[in-house]
Amino acid sequence: MPLNTSPTPTRYQQGLARLREIDGEAGERVIDSLADIAPDFARYLIEFPFGDIYSRPGLDLRSREIAVVAALTAMGNAAPQLKVHLQAALNVGVTRPEIVEIIMQMAVYAGFPAALNGLAAAREVFAEGDAAG
Amino acid sequence: MPLNTSPTPTRYQQGLARLREIDGEAGERVIDSLADIAPDFARYLIEFPFGDIYSRPGLDLRSREIAVVAALTAMGNAAPQLKVHLQAALNVGVTRPEIVEIIMQMAVYAGFPAALNGLAAAREVFAEGDAAG
Amino acid sequence: MPLNTSPTPTRYQQGLARLREIDGEAGERVIDSLADIAPDFARYLIEFPFGDIYSRPGLDLRSREIAVVAALTAMGNAAPQLKVHLQAALNVGVTRPEIVEIIMQMAVYAGFPAALNGLAAAREVFAEGDAAG
Amino acid sequence: MPLNTSPTPTRYQQGLARLREIDGEAGERVIDSLADIAPDFARYLIEFPFGDIYSRPGLDLRSREIAVVAALTAMGNAAPQLKVHLQAALNVGVTRPEIVEIIMQMAVYAGFPAALNGLAAAREVFAEGDAAG
Amino acid sequence: MPLNTSPTPTRYQQGLARLREIDGEAGERVIDSLADIAPDFARYLIEFPFGDIYSRPGLDLRSREIAVVAALTAMGNAAPQLKVHLQAALNVGVTRPEIVEIIMQMAVYAGFPAALNGLAAAREVFAEGDAAG
Amino acid sequence: MPLNTSPTPTRYQQGLARLREIDGEAGERVIDSLADIAPDFARYLIEFPFGDIYSRPGLDLRSREIAVVAALTAMGNAAPQLKVHLQAALNVGVTRPEIVEIIMQMAVYAGFPAALNGLAAAREVFAEGDAAG
Repeated sequence: MPLNTSPTPTRYQQGLARLREIDGEAGERVIDSLADIAPDFARYLIEFPFGDIYSRPGLDLRSREIAVVAALTAMGNAAPQLKVHLQAALNVGVTRPEIVEIIMQMAVYAGFPAALNGLAAAREVFAEGDAAG
Repeated sequence: MPLNTSPTPTRYQQGLARLREIDGEAGERVIDSLADIAPDFARYLIEFPFGDIYSRPGLDLRSREIAVVAALTAMGNAAPQLKVHLQAALNVGVTRPEIVEIIMQMAVYAGFPAALNGLAAAREVFAEGDAAG
Repeated sequence: MPLNTSPTPTRYQQGLARLREIDGEAGERVIDSLADIAPDFARYLIEFPFGDIYSRPGLDLRSREIAVVAALTAMGNAAPQLKVHLQAALNVGVTRPEIVEIIMQMAVYAGFPAALNGLAAAREVFAEGDAAG
Repeated sequence: MPLNTSPTPTRYQQGLARLREIDGEAGERVIDSLADIAPDFARYLIEFPFGDIYSRPGLDLRSREIAVVAALTAMGNAAPQLKVHLQAALNVGVTRPEIVEIIMQMAVYAGFPAALNGLAAAREVFAEGDAAG
Repeated sequence: MPLNTSPTPTRYQQGLARLREIDGEAGERVIDSLADIAPDFARYLIEFPFGDIYSRPGLDLRSREIAVVAALTAMGNAAPQLKVHLQAALNVGVTRPEIVEIIMQMAVYAGFPAALNGLAAAREVFAEGDAAG
Repeated sequence: MPLNTSPTPTRYQQGLARLREIDGEAGERVIDSLADIAPDFARYLIEFPFGDIYSRPGLDLRSREIAVVAALTAMGNAAPQLKVHLQAALNVGVTRPEIVEIIMQMAVYAGFPAALNGLAAAREVFAEGDAAG
């Protein structure tokens, strides 16, 4: 009788699956972009955020992406990552109108400029989605 | 025949009801604290965030509080407001373990110090809840 | 006898007039850019910042724009809004040399990079003004 | 015939006079607090911000303090310095109601928490002023 | 003869050793403080920052702590963590005068308030060191 | 016999020499870019950061550039200045792999987005160095 045909996946394997599920192609592009300059950082990015944090059962992915879109909009200094997570939020079931609500709400906590720049990022991501059909 | 016995509530009335629903006593304390120095700001706080934003139907309160807890944890420079919204998150149905998940996730986006300080705030809020029975 | 020929303007009407007075065409472009993605946010932007805050009599517009240019330079993460308000400051009577003074002073409070990036934004806005004659 | 009875003051002398004029006792306490750990930094603080920047003729002190109160309120991570400059703003002629206007306006650019914490600092400074008679 | 008596240490074991080497008792207190509210986060903190990052051979610990002291001083919103790393810097051989130099330099990049607050934290840490003999 | 053939260099002269040593051509470009809009700020930039701070003997230039690269990566809102100091770090002997280590470490303190954007800046600077031969 074969043992261990379904071994516990490693953090790396689990993280990579989670990254693909959440971030899709954009996530893979981030990983690829690190290959020349910091391949170990690509590994950490897969293992810690995705293998450890996003693989935890205590909070659904929809709630996790709401949290990330809110945080990156409020911080206002991570435009490329905000765009990746706007797409990720759509990927895990947050709707476009809900995304707009989250960003608008950030005007209260981080000011209107943060919300305006978040909405500009959302417009770009939505347009890319429309163009891709 | 009496008309308009239930007139459309004003932004102020709607905001005040929303504030009480979400923030409870902590929200009223914030409003009271403004009475001497900036009473108009108390009014704006009720009207814009609560009368306008939190009264919008497009996103549930649970998701809104997840967004705020994430943003304030990530920004890391608004401890009193983070505590108010940790309680607000509990008030609208986010559980303690879910709050811990949201804050832990912020380590990925804003660093471990932001998450550690967020967890310290959560510990205080949870303890106050336990003490209040 | 005509009643109400000059009714109290609504927050929206007052805010729109204030926005045009302060931000000019750049303000209208911001409003227009929100039409497709978040038209309600355009309304809030007119009503709260401009209808409520900028319409208050307790501080002159010149002082208000000095405050905004300083804050956005110091925050360093809202370049498009800083440019709108550099033009707004000029519109309400802050001179170019005064703007340069404000930005230079921010080196003390937010560091030389913030001031250098603020000066780069000012150079762009001044050049656009020269090109427009 | 004595020459140079009124020599050009050095940056240090000019800065110290400016610091005393603007920040008063609070400024001297900052300088004193550096004596044991970083006396050279006390000198730089006198020479660059006060000897160089605040001694420039191109912007009046009132406008400079409006700028600083706005920036420190918006940044939200420098409470002790915000308090020093709230007093400095009062020292150079900004009134209490004007200070409240500036801080309230920051809700638009940096969020309501930044404004609330700025108002809390102003309340403390105003109370200290009342206590001192 | 038993093989593998010295097996490759796990990330957790390696991280815990590294944490003790760098942060000493302060690090253990951070870990202990997480036991009730987020024990998994204590594990991540040991595994990723200390087991992964601080265990990499490509940069000496002295340089790593210089980087952290600089970053936390500049960010200005993580006072407890700055104090832990001021002690950590001393633990790995950065001298008190060097720490003062690093913090003073941050005035250039993040403003004088950030440097002043960093120096205040350093004064506390140095005083605790003197008290402990 | 002429006295003072080697007079004490002024802050400006010393700062300019230090700027050239550390930042090289990129530093001179920053100075040149200020000539039209804020020539006095160019002078302050030479005198205070470079004439005062970088000319202090208490910390080697390598350690100073490690501190700056860490701080600007963590702050995440000063991309042009980060690029100047990535080159400066190379100029004073920090190696490319060490720079990558410093930036990776910032993921712990300021989040993965800050580190990813820092690595993107490093990739650009390294590529410019390769192109320049």
